Amino acid sequence: MTRPTLPQGTRDFGPETVRKRKYILDTIRRIFELYGYQPLETPAMENLDTLMGKYGEEGDKLIFKILNNGLGDPKNVDKSRKAFENVLTGKNDPNLTERALRYDLTIPFARYVAMNHNQLALPFKRYQIQPVWRADRPQKGRYREFYQCDADVVGSSSLINEVELASIYQTAFQRLRIPVEIKINHRKILAALAEICGGADKLTDITVAIDKLDKIGMEKVRAELIDRGLNDTQVASISTYLSISGSNIDKLATLQNIFAATPSGLSGIRDLESILQQVPFLSLDLTLARGLNYYTGAIFEVKATETSIGSIGGGGRYDDLTGTFGVPGIPGVGISFGVDRIYDVMEEARLFPEDVQTGTKVLFFNLGEAESNAAFQLVQQLRAADIPAEVYHESAKFDKQFKYAERKGIPFAVIIGSTELTTKTAKLKDLRDGRQTELSFEELILTFTHK
Amino acid sequence: MTRPTLPQGTRDFGPETVRKRKYILDTIRRIFELYGYQPLETPAMENLDTLMGKYGEEGDKLIFKILNNGLGDPKNVDKSRKAFENVLTGKNDPNLTERALRYDLTIPFARYVAMNHNQLALPFKRYQIQPVWRADRPQKGRYREFYQCDADVVGSSSLINEVELASIYQTAFQRLRIPVEIKINHRKILAALAEICGGADKLTDITVAIDKLDKIGMEKVRAELIDRGLNDTQVASISTYLSISGSNIDKLATLQNIFAATPSGLSGIRDLESILQQVPFLSLDLTLARGLNYYTGAIFEVKATETSIGSIGGGGRYDDLTGTFGVPGIPGVGISFGVDRIYDVMEEARLFPEDVQTGTKVLFFNLGEAESNAAFQLVQQLRAADIPAEVYHESAKFDKQFKYAERKGIPFAVIIGSTELTTKTAKLKDLRDGRQTELSFEELILTFTHK
Repeated sequence: MTRPTLPQGTRDFGPETVRKRKYILDTIRRIFELYGYQPLETPAMENLDTLMGKYGEEGDKLIFKILNNGLGDPKNVDKSRKAFENVLTGKNDPNLTERALRYDLTIPFARYVAMNHNQLALPFKRYQIQPVWRADRPQKGRYREFYQCDADVVGSSSLINEVELASIYQTAFQRLRIPVEIKINHRKILAALAEICGGADKLTDITVAIDKLDKIGMEKVRAELIDRGLNDTQVASISTYLSISGSNIDKLATLQNIFAATPSGLSGIRDLESILQQVPFLSLDLTLARGLNYYTGAIFEVKATETSIGSIGGGGRYDDLTGTFGVPGIPGVGISFGVDRIYDVMEEARLFPEDVQTGTKVLFFNLGEAESNAAFQLVQQLRAADIPAEVYHESAKFDKQFKYAERKGIPFAVIIGSTELTTKTAKLKDLRDGRQTELSFEELILTFTHK
Repeated sequence: MTRPTLPQGTRDFGPETVRKRKYILDTIRRIFELYGYQPLETPAMENLDTLMGKYGEEGDKLIFKILNNGLGDPKNVDKSRKAFENVLTGKNDPNLTERALRYDLTIPFARYVAMNHNQLALPFKRYQIQPVWRADRPQKGRYREFYQCDADVVGSSSLINEVELASIYQTAFQRLRIPVEIKINHRKILAALAEICGGADKLTDITVAIDKLDKIGMEKVRAELIDRGLNDTQVASISTYLSISGSNIDKLATLQNIFAATPSGLSGIRDLESILQQVPFLSLDLTLARGLNYYTGAIFEVKATETSIGSIGGGGRYDDLTGTFGVPGIPGVGISFGVDRIYDVMEEARLFPEDVQTGTKVLFFNLGEAESNAAFQLVQQLRAADIPAEVYHESAKFDKQFKYAERKGIPFAVIIGSTELTTKTAKLKDLRDGRQTELSFEELILTFTHK
């Protein structure tokens, strides 16, 4: 038997990593709850029908499909072969694969809302923290299994939701101690820009090009716009737009002039004014476009400012979440936290609190049967007082027991030998500074329970 | 577009259910940590190789396999067709499916230990709480996606581990307030019984028959043993064994007589004596067999005593976890919690604490723009004090806002109209008893933060 391996693009999370990830997710989860968002969990598998056609042609190719069971049953073989030929030509066939793995959390959420909208109290504010799977080519920072962490509210057009989601971002990154810039822009402003550049059909060309400004710079964005068929006057308008500077209020004033005769622009400006009045800590970034076509209102992006890791969150308003599942007219707005990148930022800047790693607080050494039985009784008292404690599993050399404590990062050792057993005392050793004290059993328990 | 559905055997968990499940899992997780067990998470997908052949012929059929991507690429088509024909004949072929979904948590854990044993501090005590997938025929209480919740320690033969795992069971079910009987038996005692009945080769026949005693009764067990080729004398010995009664100590004394000349039996008795001395709350149940062949020492099973739901946990000691992955000689012992059944027991007996459902504590009514802006400021103060609060998303009729609070189970409403806005006061209404008080903004905040 050869040594086993992991599938490409997947990861094991050992104890240290699980604890750090849990710290991030618990922090965010608590804030979602503070804002009245409620937890939802959907299955890892969805019907293939539910997922196909929702993520564009490229996305469809990255969906992991699950092979039906029983393909070789005599009564299925012919159907299976036919289905397989269909799949080879790029089609889907439920006779080969009925199910597929969750590709994101938004479509399963939409499916849930479509199935349950009669029973839900709208607006429905839900959060969801679960893994998703994508058959992407693995590379640094890109995995085939990764967690998404989303909060969305559906059934409300009120801007209160935008204000609250922005506040959730602010609170979360404050509690995680990550310095961030939370950017906002509005799809209607980009739509108005497209309008004054000759028509709504230019919107995608413009947003795709603008989206690259950060990476490729103004000159190349201009070249791309020309390539995409915009004329010099139009490109000049876009350049003017992209160069608007100053405070949020300055920018809004300039926009007001540019879009004075463009109703969609004015409507976007009004939304932004109203949002920024309540949450002035946002940065109005007119170059923010966000790739996804389904956004229709405010859009958000969060950047960690003191690292090169880039975007660690994003979201926005969309008009019609569940229309594709036969339930039209439910608008929504949502944000997402990039858990893996947040982890990397915190690791890089050493932002995890020290106590995130404290599992076991104290190791009782094992110096024989009677001694370890006494130790076990004390350990049970500590555990009853909610203090993680262990007895070393067997009587062994001190060295070995110290090493176990060290490798597990346990800060205290308690030594009860035959002498101590008679006097009902214990040696307590602080493994970080080596200091040792002798205590009665009662004092020992109190030392930990009163800390 | 037809209304979407869920794949057979899978479930959505809405807010109420997620909260209750989280209560169960957090309770158990905390106890694992108290005993020095550390968290591990493995990927949903494993290489098909890692899983195949580990769960018996029936198990292998229930593994969900993931279709490779790019089967139809011109350079792959021939290989794909050949692979598919292999799969139709019941073989596995990595050219069609390289990966499969996790079927349990034990094999991925073994794979992890085999890959990392040089870096691990042995004994390694790990817990793991993740979903698994099985292509079983769905039926009441049996799902295709369900959580397992396991704690195992590997690299130690010490009975301290059995004692601690039994204590984990006891503490967990005490904290969950589920009355249980925690049963123990020992594989060596069953092996000794097989020995005095004519040989080790009878062990499986005997355990399979004994395992059914609960369901089919002594007469039918006797019939089955005869069917399985045991003679009258042997069946009589087994009957005698199964009728041993009395306290744990009585039973051990009787066993001592029966197995006086059977070393494996004596060794099992010594283990049980040693374990029961530390954790006398266990019930020695000599009819307990547990189906899985890989157990070699103590075995456990937990039954909820005040319901018909049956076993809600089980486990035992095994000799060689990672041998199948090329790393022999690592013994272990572990237990498992049946999360879905624990949920059902707690639901049936109404054991979930009431506050498990409190998401939002107070809803501020929305009576217009200026009023809701003021409400938002107060809500932000409450959230900063870690109290979940909401402003209703739009100015709407009282009825609608009350109904939202009711459907979401929010216990308090705060009403700030234009009069209250001027006087900086608020009406606080307890929605459970209808009582209403008028408070200044400061008093309102204090009411919640000092509760």
